[in-house]
Amino acid sequence: MVMNYNKLFSKQTLNMRSSIIREMLSSTKGIPGLISFAGGFPAPETFPKEDIAQIFADVIKNEGDDILQYGASEGDRLLKEQLRRVETDLEGLKDEEILVTVGSTNGIYLYAASLVNEGDVILAEAPSFLGSLLAFESMGADLVSIDMDDEGIIPEKMSEVAEQLKKEGKNIKFLYLIPDFQNPRGTTMSHKRRKEIIEVASEYNIPILEDNPYGPLRYAGEKVKSMYSIARYEMGNPDTVTMVKSFSKILGPGLRLAYIIGSEILIGKMCSWMQKVNVSPDCVAQRAVAEYLKRDLLMPHVETVRDFYRPRMNAMIDSMNKFMPDGLKWTKPDGGMFLWIELPEKINGDELFEKAKKFKIAFIPGSNFYPKGREKYNCMRLNFSYPTPEQIETGIERLAELIKSEM
Amino acid sequence: MVMNYNKLFSKQTLNMRSSIIREMLSSTKGIPGLISFAGGFPAPETFPKEDIAQIFADVIKNEGDDILQYGASEGDRLLKEQLRRVETDLEGLKDEEILVTVGSTNGIYLYAASLVNEGDVILAEAPSFLGSLLAFESMGADLVSIDMDDEGIIPEKMSEVAEQLKKEGKNIKFLYLIPDFQNPRGTTMSHKRRKEIIEVASEYNIPILEDNPYGPLRYAGEKVKSMYSIARYEMGNPDTVTMVKSFSKILGPGLRLAYIIGSEILIGKMCSWMQKVNVSPDCVAQRAVAEYLKRDLLMPHVETVRDFYRPRMNAMIDSMNKFMPDGLKWTKPDGGMFLWIELPEKINGDELFEKAKKFKIAFIPGSNFYPKGREKYNCMRLNFSYPTPEQIETGIERLAELIKSEM
Repeated sequence: MVMNYNKLFSKQTLNMRSSIIREMLSSTKGIPGLISFAGGFPAPETFPKEDIAQIFADVIKNEGDDILQYGASEGDRLLKEQLRRVETDLEGLKDEEILVTVGSTNGIYLYAASLVNEGDVILAEAPSFLGSLLAFESMGADLVSIDMDDEGIIPEKMSEVAEQLKKEGKNIKFLYLIPDFQNPRGTTMSHKRRKEIIEVASEYNIPILEDNPYGPLRYAGEKVKSMYSIARYEMGNPDTVTMVKSFSKILGPGLRLAYIIGSEILIGKMCSWMQKVNVSPDCVAQRAVAEYLKRDLLMPHVETVRDFYRPRMNAMIDSMNKFMPDGLKWTKPDGGMFLWIELPEKINGDELFEKAKKFKIAFIPGSNFYPKGREKYNCMRLNFSYPTPEQIETGIERLAELIKSEM
Repeated sequence: MVMNYNKLFSKQTLNMRSSIIREMLSSTKGIPGLISFAGGFPAPETFPKEDIAQIFADVIKNEGDDILQYGASEGDRLLKEQLRRVETDLEGLKDEEILVTVGSTNGIYLYAASLVNEGDVILAEAPSFLGSLLAFESMGADLVSIDMDDEGIIPEKMSEVAEQLKKEGKNIKFLYLIPDFQNPRGTTMSHKRRKEIIEVASEYNIPILEDNPYGPLRYAGEKVKSMYSIARYEMGNPDTVTMVKSFSKILGPGLRLAYIIGSEILIGKMCSWMQKVNVSPDCVAQRAVAEYLKRDLLMPHVETVRDFYRPRMNAMIDSMNKFMPDGLKWTKPDGGMFLWIELPEKINGDELFEKAKKFKIAFIPGSNFYPKGREKYNCMRLNFSYPTPEQIETGIERLAELIKSEM
């Protein structure tokens, strides 16, 4: 009696891609002295363990009857109250315009589930965050990327693509963007460009999903308003942009807490999906974070996080300037966790990854951030949030040696 | 610039049913002295607040660097280790045969996502748990129910249905069952019946999803082995049955923690879906529960939970015997949270619900537990885990008066 599951799996399940990053990285484990620019993890030194421990104990002791019980699918009312108080993007929003989610990924999944049928088109930056691309593919979506310059995707190119897809009778369901400190490129879209993109999107009835996990991690330069805020408050357009923000990079991703804000009708549908997918996020974690905000601990903590990461970003930018040969291009991030290198055409990032082991360094080959079949290979993503400034300098020097040997 | 989301929602989203239970119940709010048999919530008196508060503080303080960080999609290794130690069903299982999930609902969703395409058939008991039925419908599944007797679904009927659907060229993806203290009927399937169903399922290559949220809540009678254990250990069939078990009814549903065990290939696919849907369950909650198990607190706590609920179940059964008129049938649960009443054909549970407000009682009309379009109306579900034994006696007396007035 052996079950034949291969005859039973859904089409999406059989076509599902796993991230190959995990496998690549496990091949670097156990290399002594390896300096890794590969991960995307926040540094555990930034987790406010003592405060969080105390607050969890307090809320469970005092409010356990409530928060150990089933909670609302739309999320904890008290957390929303605190979010509105401390986050300018949320000022004046109704409860029905906010959904608390099990991390950003969950918010992105519920958004896509609300909109996408098999064969529908999702527009995206290329390169973009692999996790989202894989989730979209798993729903049978057709990923179409739009050409970019240093300010982000190009509005005229977006119009052209939308026009062309319309002619082909395709359904474009949304545009997925990471405007702040993009993953993997580390770049930030200008205010002007954001407005232009929102205009094109509105014209073609294409909603925008603004993924904003890194927003608070700005170490230099001026804050740019979120696309959500620009659309709602500057352009009088409260419907087009939906934004997902996370506590993962500032409190700890293990808590699995994020929130998504947008049009009431869309948030309502996502809430119905939440009911079926998870019932609700963890009610204890939601209330603990509400209490953390209530005690006014978040903003000072974010400052310490910025102070922790700033020297790392600077060390990477300085080392790049100091060691890298001519013929390379790289981005100059003002925040976030990543810097992106474009190599000369003939150098393949995947092959370089293998050779890098001898130089005791690791990074993510850029090909991993493109939709299937549309990969570029002469690129790589470097993370600067995990290694120390000293490791960063040493590692970039080694990487420069490796790249020179290939040129 | 108004977005037209109605043109953009996916087919499933537009067809999605919400539970109408919530709306019905809000109509009973504010009735003074109302005794409610409607909910399915565990009693907050059973939550071990002090222990849980202490353990959360301890694990965040001692292991915060690890558990506030991103965790494995397949779940916390230490939690699995403890589960294997304390749960007989899990003895000897590999990590790859266990997936930790964001509550049972999440496990059920990931299971269905792994298997179901639009139009596929899912077999189920009727009546069954509304939450699962709604989730299956939202995936575009065709729900087919199998006739039941007091032992559960009837194996011969299952063969007939499977044979018929095969002839029609339908894909049956799985059979969904709650064999212990079923929701809503409160009944438990016999050992013999479980074996017979597994045999039919294996013959037709139909996997079984055994939903087991109430297993630990036995207040009378002898434990019946899980279908998972029977298939694996008695019948040498480790693949057919996948079982999902939860901490919701014994520690608190707000923690959103459950686990699902089954065939390695299927668990692997569910883990890929987890990566896309949630990344992972809350890592802090996982480790806290692992520590709770490690300190050997679970088994004594489950005993206190049983002692808390036992007098409530007994009060309900005794009151039913004492007050109810002839011409009614009801189930005799040995555990769980529910008892099911079959009314004379002419009495409609939905109409009774409205009249019950005057009698200051509430329950869930039975029609809510059937697939859309296949409702039965002469039935109702009563919960006995939330009201006190005294409230139960008073409430059942009132309910009997109401029913008598309709006969």
